[in-house]
Amino acid sequence: MKIDHLRRAGNKLRLLDQTRLPGELIYKELDDYRDIIESIKRLEVRGAPAIGIAAAYAVAVAAHQTDRLEPEYLVEVASEIKAARPTAVNLAWAVDRVMHSLREVDVMDVEKTRLSLWNEAEAIHEEDRQMCAAIGRHGAELIQDGWSILTHCNAGALATGGIGTALGVIYTARDQGKNLRVFADETRPLLQGARLTTWELQQEGIEVTLLCDSMAAMLMAQGKVDCVIVGADRVASNGDAANKIGTYSVAVLAREHNIPFYVAAPMSTWDMAIESGEQIPIEERGADEITSGFGKRTAPEGTKVYSPAFDVTPIRLITAHITDEGVKAGGRAG
Amino acid sequence: MKIDHLRRAGNKLRLLDQTRLPGELIYKELDDYRDIIESIKRLEVRGAPAIGIAAAYAVAVAAHQTDRLEPEYLVEVASEIKAARPTAVNLAWAVDRVMHSLREVDVMDVEKTRLSLWNEAEAIHEEDRQMCAAIGRHGAELIQDGWSILTHCNAGALATGGIGTALGVIYTARDQGKNLRVFADETRPLLQGARLTTWELQQEGIEVTLLCDSMAAMLMAQGKVDCVIVGADRVASNGDAANKIGTYSVAVLAREHNIPFYVAAPMSTWDMAIESGEQIPIEERGADEITSGFGKRTAPEGTKVYSPAFDVTPIRLITAHITDEGVKAGGRAG
Repeated sequence: MKIDHLRRAGNKLRLLDQTRLPGELIYKELDDYRDIIESIKRLEVRGAPAIGIAAAYAVAVAAHQTDRLEPEYLVEVASEIKAARPTAVNLAWAVDRVMHSLREVDVMDVEKTRLSLWNEAEAIHEEDRQMCAAIGRHGAELIQDGWSILTHCNAGALATGGIGTALGVIYTARDQGKNLRVFADETRPLLQGARLTTWELQQEGIEVTLLCDSMAAMLMAQGKVDCVIVGADRVASNGDAANKIGTYSVAVLAREHNIPFYVAAPMSTWDMAIESGEQIPIEERGADEITSGFGKRTAPEGTKVYSPAFDVTPIRLITAHITDEGVKAGGRAG
Repeated sequence: MKIDHLRRAGNKLRLLDQTRLPGELIYKELDDYRDIIESIKRLEVRGAPAIGIAAAYAVAVAAHQTDRLEPEYLVEVASEIKAARPTAVNLAWAVDRVMHSLREVDVMDVEKTRLSLWNEAEAIHEEDRQMCAAIGRHGAELIQDGWSILTHCNAGALATGGIGTALGVIYTARDQGKNLRVFADETRPLLQGARLTTWELQQEGIEVTLLCDSMAAMLMAQGKVDCVIVGADRVASNGDAANKIGTYSVAVLAREHNIPFYVAAPMSTWDMAIESGEQIPIEERGADEITSGFGKRTAPEGTKVYSPAFDVTPIRLITAHITDEGVKAGGRAG
């Protein structure tokens, strides 16, 4: 894996600004947790697992921004970080976990507190690497030599702390000697497919063809897709999966064309506290992402937009969930 | 109708350069048929009926570019014009029709030949106005007060010589006093929905909300769409309809959500010479339309793309065809 987009660097968080890809490779070293929150909000770091890791590191970074580590300070910091984006469950989960690690620590001891936060954040990162590897191993068993795989958005190394979820399955299958080809939906409005998935797969030497989201149906009708694999930002306990807007559309189309539809995500993405996808909060993004998406105004001033950042794919459209604990059959017949 | 984008101006063709919308209103007066071909190729004028009208005028314009109107010259010109774009049947149909008008004319008489070409082109234009009006009348009967209508691409005044096909239905229903709201798919890669439909509907005072193509599924799942109306570039004799890429996707989604799906197009768009949509040639567009949308590179250099300009919606997904001759039931159950 050549991609190294997110890691601890001393007492800072080093990240690749994904909003600048594929044109520019800009690495930032952040020593202010508020800058990390901004990076999360601006999607400089994105993907549910990567957001969780960045958020965990942000708490550790924040612990260096004051001399007196009052519990109130950390609680306030944790709360600010958790509010950065609403849909991914990993964000709150990771922040809560580094905070819980302090239960064993004497919070009057500033150095031990900082150490504990960094250790827990690094543990979360390492576990994410392991989860990606496990998802890759389980998922690769579903993939046959010679397949063409359609994916939506970016659920790759750039979205996680490891080899990725959906793309991790593809890397693992490739490493087993399978010859694969990927079709990447460009993924409007922010073009994560065009900017990130295409770039990432090229870095990793996998053949990729880019298409507009609206072209996936025809590609399927022409028999050019053997399976679909996507990631997830949050999975409800019944298996309904929230992922990048457009995923639900691809799932309906996959069933129409009898193409298996897989969701690859670690169990930490599953929110067992909610029964179904209807309870997943969906972030609305600003109008400019649609009306000025290419740096140039492409719709009249003042145009009203509809712009949910995610949609929910019901379990009845999912062939199987690929998790770090194994493959779970979904609700789709056939 | 405030929009006046395409008409004869003396011995020239005056057209609104639609590639510059919505930012700039640039009208061109073209006195060289090769420039009209370029305008068609570059989508400065687009939409199957408008392309046909522009092509008919192009033959008349060409007749002023030589002093000696040899039949060979006009046949060569006609052939060049017909090759501008492959999918819309109106283009070849309109060119053939102005050429056939010469059968009654003494081709040694240059002035009479020119007059006949202009007259026939203007007749085609006027008939298109009438066809749009008839489509509007027939289609409006299907539309109920208070409905929200989803459309894809631009099948409006800007795509025709009249009030439009899909949007013509909406204008007519509105003029009958029905309160309507339109959702416009942005329509990648060239954003005709964002640039043209949004602009056109705002000019005509109809409430419009813009969304990315990938968001239509969620909009439908939320119960926010009462019907879909789109245009067509060519309809096969069995009712399969070729239209802007992404239309087939919307048709699958409309059936999934039990939303009526209507195709509005004049009978001149029907190609009775072909049995089914499989025989409709589909134009492939260049990679740059996807990888460098609007001036900024959004995918790595050399990225391979899949970019059909059209797709075919099979009759089984069409609730009804709205034509100038009336509404014809489609093949969709329910």
